[in-house]
Amino acid sequence: MNYFSSDFKLGILGGGQLGKMMLSDTRKFDIQTYVLDPSEEAPSRIACNKFFQGNLMDFDTVYNFGKQVDVLTFEIELVNIEALEKLESEGVKVFPSPKTLRGIQNKGTQKDFYVANNIPTSPHKRFHSIGDLKSEVGNAIISLPFVWKSAEFGYDGNGVKVVRSAQDLDNLPNVECIAEEMVPFKNELAVIVVRNPSGEIKTYPVVEMEFHPEANQVEYVICPARIDEKVAEKARAIALNVSEKFNHVGLLAVEMFQTNDDEILINEVAPRPHNSGHYSIEASYTSQFENHLRAILDLPLGNTDSKVAGIMVNLVGEEGFSGQVVYENIEKIMAIDGVTPHIYGKRETRPFRKMGHVTIVNEDIAEARKVAEEVKKLIRVISK
Amino acid sequence: MNYFSSDFKLGILGGGQLGKMMLSDTRKFDIQTYVLDPSEEAPSRIACNKFFQGNLMDFDTVYNFGKQVDVLTFEIELVNIEALEKLESEGVKVFPSPKTLRGIQNKGTQKDFYVANNIPTSPHKRFHSIGDLKSEVGNAIISLPFVWKSAEFGYDGNGVKVVRSAQDLDNLPNVECIAEEMVPFKNELAVIVVRNPSGEIKTYPVVEMEFHPEANQVEYVICPARIDEKVAEKARAIALNVSEKFNHVGLLAVEMFQTNDDEILINEVAPRPHNSGHYSIEASYTSQFENHLRAILDLPLGNTDSKVAGIMVNLVGEEGFSGQVVYENIEKIMAIDGVTPHIYGKRETRPFRKMGHVTIVNEDIAEARKVAEEVKKLIRVISK
Repeated sequence: MNYFSSDFKLGILGGGQLGKMMLSDTRKFDIQTYVLDPSEEAPSRIACNKFFQGNLMDFDTVYNFGKQVDVLTFEIELVNIEALEKLESEGVKVFPSPKTLRGIQNKGTQKDFYVANNIPTSPHKRFHSIGDLKSEVGNAIISLPFVWKSAEFGYDGNGVKVVRSAQDLDNLPNVECIAEEMVPFKNELAVIVVRNPSGEIKTYPVVEMEFHPEANQVEYVICPARIDEKVAEKARAIALNVSEKFNHVGLLAVEMFQTNDDEILINEVAPRPHNSGHYSIEASYTSQFENHLRAILDLPLGNTDSKVAGIMVNLVGEEGFSGQVVYENIEKIMAIDGVTPHIYGKRETRPFRKMGHVTIVNEDIAEARKVAEEVKKLIRVISK
Repeated sequence: MNYFSSDFKLGILGGGQLGKMMLSDTRKFDIQTYVLDPSEEAPSRIACNKFFQGNLMDFDTVYNFGKQVDVLTFEIELVNIEALEKLESEGVKVFPSPKTLRGIQNKGTQKDFYVANNIPTSPHKRFHSIGDLKSEVGNAIISLPFVWKSAEFGYDGNGVKVVRSAQDLDNLPNVECIAEEMVPFKNELAVIVVRNPSGEIKTYPVVEMEFHPEANQVEYVICPARIDEKVAEKARAIALNVSEKFNHVGLLAVEMFQTNDDEILINEVAPRPHNSGHYSIEASYTSQFENHLRAILDLPLGNTDSKVAGIMVNLVGEEGFSGQVVYENIEKIMAIDGVTPHIYGKRETRPFRKMGHVTIVNEDIAEARKVAEEVKKLIRVISK
């Protein structure tokens, strides 16, 4: 297949920042792209060849969009899977496959899959409704505390809650859900795996999420993770296993816990470019976005090693500010060596809205960590 | 000034591959761009916010385009300077300035400038017409051989010819020109300088052009140049001096000769992103394109150091092929670690047309050089 400066068309469901960053690589290779997104102000609108506005959960919209392209991928999991299945059955290449997506989209199914495949994960139980869960809690079949997760449509911490008392259940929505045992852990890690249809497979180095000591919020994504080499090897091996068991094509971001006794437990996976891999644009030989593209087009995968250490800081809208965005002190952080801001292109900020990220690279990870703290203190996403 | 996700508009004259690569960074920072180019198939057409088709040498076209933007830059020198001057006088920021561009666009003026500023360059003489030159050659005032250069409108080797006999003059056009003494040299080098209006200034490492041993053609641009550290320091110091003397804002690519006795002579300069800096996308902490943008917006300049060694190979259309382009063996080169093709987005290939480039990065420059040769042997730009 000739992808480069040809009539070949890649379709991308979703036109947010992940799509936008992927388009940087489709442009580099001059691969034609069609993008579908519900918002007319989608960050991917410019830089794709053709933009379509429409609902990603609507069968007809997704189906009609998919019929126009040769290969179809997505940058968000919340898409109409039935349409993907029909497109696949009619010869459109859909990567990651609807089958994998189905196995991942429902967190109950995803957890069952790990159990069935002997992949280490925290013990869980599935419930059709909040009522079923409440009665088990009431009858002390399930012991407190535990982690409640909505089976579907959760993202970025939405649809996840620690339940410490029966009262905590009262404010939860009546949806299919799972209850997960709370396992104490010392680190949250992630490994991105990339695999192409020919079966070539590679892992990126293990990254570490560093949390704010008080607020329970990820502050830094650090690559490589500052962990024991043996633990890192184990994490990469487990991530490889997950990708292979899913028969996955494209990127698979595998989020994990490192327990107090150095066991690795899978938390969850995302079948697409992931926040934990943004550092790769500046730090890696091949960025996650380029490797996703290489994978779904069945091109040889690029080197996943790092040239330098990388740390990523998310830029989210400051509390108390809404409206036309201003990146306060952005000039100051740009004056520091190795600092690159990425601005996603959303004109309006809102509290906690993901507006961009900053990558800090340095040969020395300790120096990068210091700079990251400086960056974090300086920059603020506010409004005019 | 707030550039990021704001109403600010950057205008770019020219929509070729240099503009296209710059747009990757305007997108990263979400800076609005307007692009003017004569071709409706310009590589920059997608990824800019607004595209205008028009003649870059036409006063009204350039003036009317420029009136719509806040800062104006160019990716090609062949633009209407009078329009730039009028725009500047009316308050549009034009970087590099029309004054600098005027000093550079005419090679006779450029050479005189070096002489006036004690910047080392090969001896030259200016001629208004080919007739004037012929009579000096006829009267043996000028001795053979020498290098003839058209004073204006030359690029990529067009408008340059080695004159070895009086007969060689017969096929030259009747234009203003210069005759340059042929100085034997052992290396062609280049240094890219970046300078912002506040006067912050940085140089990239010295790169080396490696020529094919038989065909007189650059095969590889190698960073860092494999030369003595003292010669490299001298080259960077001279390049800094040139940029400061021009009072230049933006990128200035300074091409030089290293003579047999290790003197550095300026060959010529280009006031824009340059082929000799393409390696920087993958190898440098900050690419030349990002630094051009930072400079013309008076933002702090990024680190010009390299993370790893980089080698660039141009992809030009193979002789004997015209029409819909095919990049033969592109999958094979992508299977090699550290190899990144850049496809400019021209659908039609023609002999010697610049269609893209390939960057090879590696921690070890000798290894990168081996891979570059492998890449060069494999890939061919042909037609269907």
